[in-house]
Amino acid sequence: MTSVHHPLTEEQIRREDELVQTVVASFDGAADDRLREIMQALVRHSHAFVRDVRLTEAEWSSAIAFLTACGHITDDRRQEFILLSDVLGLSMQTVAVNNEAYADATEATVFGPFFVGDAPLVETGGDIAFGSPGQPCWVEGTVRDTQGAPIAGARIEVWEADEDGFYDVQYTDDRVGGRAHLFADDDGGYAFWGLTPTPYPIPHDGPVGQMLEAVGRSPMRASHLHFMVAAEGARTLVTHIFVRGDELLTSDSVFGVKDSLILDFHEQPADAPTPDGRDLGGRTWSRTRFDIVLAPSDL
Amino acid sequence: MTSVHHPLTEEQIRREDELVQTVVASFDGAADDRLREIMQALVRHSHAFVRDVRLTEAEWSSAIAFLTACGHITDDRRQEFILLSDVLGLSMQTVAVNNEAYADATEATVFGPFFVGDAPLVETGGDIAFGSPGQPCWVEGTVRDTQGAPIAGARIEVWEADEDGFYDVQYTDDRVGGRAHLFADDDGGYAFWGLTPTPYPIPHDGPVGQMLEAVGRSPMRASHLHFMVAAEGARTLVTHIFVRGDELLTSDSVFGVKDSLILDFHEQPADAPTPDGRDLGGRTWSRTRFDIVLAPSDL
Ligand SMILES: [Cu+2]
Ligand SMILES: [Fe+3]
Ligand SMILES: [Fe+3]
Repeated sequence: MTSVHHPLTEEQIRREDELVQTVVASFDGAADDRLREIMQALVRHSHAFVRDVRLTEAEWSSAIAFLTACGHITDDRRQEFILLSDVLGLSMQTVAVNNEAYADATEATVFGPFFVGDAPLVETGGDIAFGSPGQPCWVEGTVRDTQGAPIAGARIEVWEADEDGFYDVQYTDDRVGGRAHLFADDDGGYAFWGLTPTPYPIPHDGPVGQMLEAVGRSPMRASHLHFMVAAEGARTLVTHIFVRGDELLTSDSVFGVKDSLILDFHEQPADAPTPDGRDLGGRTWSRTRFDIVLAPSDL
Repeated sequence: MTSVHHPLTEEQIRREDELVQTVVASFDGAADDRLREIMQALVRHSHAFVRDVRLTEAEWSSAIAFLTACGHITDDRRQEFILLSDVLGLSMQTVAVNNEAYADATEATVFGPFFVGDAPLVETGGDIAFGSPGQPCWVEGTVRDTQGAPIAGARIEVWEADEDGFYDVQYTDDRVGGRAHLFADDDGGYAFWGLTPTPYPIPHDGPVGQMLEAVGRSPMRASHLHFMVAAEGARTLVTHIFVRGDELLTSDSVFGVKDSLILDFHEQPADAPTPDGRDLGGRTWSRTRFDIVLAPSDL
């Protein structure tokens, strides 16, 4: 059961309300309209939070200590405040707010920290694994606009973790693997060999990991493969595809999963002929289809 | 004028609502009831903030960078997250929530960072300045309960900045000044010589100071003198007294001012006889009266 708070006197409510008004008014003089709007909304919601839960002074101190610990573990490589935003669903809500539903445009999800700008180019049907370990996975589909017209030449960036859950940037050497870019063909079609996605945890050896532990949440991300798709006149899409049946779909630590992004990954026996005749040396493989719809950029 | 946001489609609202529900539900399994209540309220209010202002991804990045800068300037001596809480009025709102209005009990205000636990004892009428520079100020009053009964022996801690706006802990030597404790006499009365309060800024050479600058707010605190009053059976009171007429009363950077805490400080000419016959060597002085009412501890 949640704690039950006693009723407040009128005088107490008046004092708390008056404080909110005073703090809001202190931002009235901000020269930048947007900054004023943001700060005043921040004051309203943060004060409502403190009042709703009747935050104790000890709890307030714990919150200050938590933020301090997040600040101290953060450096050029580790960003605990982004992790915090992620596990509170705030990163995903920001994505939602900035990628509004439009006709049948493919849904967006979080960008994540593992994108690299200069991933190698592969031709249609090329292999983006570049030797990174994992089960081969044939991924194919089309890129279209919301009228159904193919978007020839759309630029598709793909990146994913290997079967051990590591992105190439986490390797101890400078090897590139599990990432590439390619272009949709004249019919908007694309295809590549990747790896069947596998799960991995977000960094959980810091304060955010301790918080997840305290509330009984897992740091694991559902298995996924990242896409970023861009074309002239189209809203750039940053998204993932997820694997139907993955038991982590309902507990993704950063709330990136959308029903529309869960795809069937069909497992293939070792002797199944591959779409492009590639010889996989007797390994099993999987295949999926992801048809992408881009919203117009001028919504 | 504030930015005007366009109306959202039903599908967009559904997606944003659903995300909030999913994130809230992710905390359902928290073993600690209070932690669950706090985290779920935090999710609701923080998501409402992002949705209300339609936070852009660039603004989100700025917020992450701001928190990171606050973390990096914070060390054992400098606490930027407390400053942030202070200038957003969240410290004061937490004080309000934890010191509910009760009959005519004296209002509480923020504790601040300059209290020291082992301040010297002075007798009634003693001088708490201990040589710190400033205009002498006679402070007297009573400590009573909400029935009007004197609280003999109430412990009164007082601390304040000198005329240059510095607390002793900010001096470069170990000198103690502008702080002491004393006890109410058998009639609940107390009196001491302090310094007429003067204004000082909160530390504003960091990210919080930059934010204040960006929104056109001053880092100055209204002139004040700190009190902490404790007695058995009473709710400990942490408060300030402020100086009527101080032009900073309406712009106190941490929102500590309450109308009921603004007192008349009566300026006295150099030749005015002092209450206790003390010879001030021809200096001007001031005097004020602060009658304190403590709420019971078992509210
Ligand atoms: Cu809110
Ligand atoms: Fe990822
Ligand atoms: Fe102070």
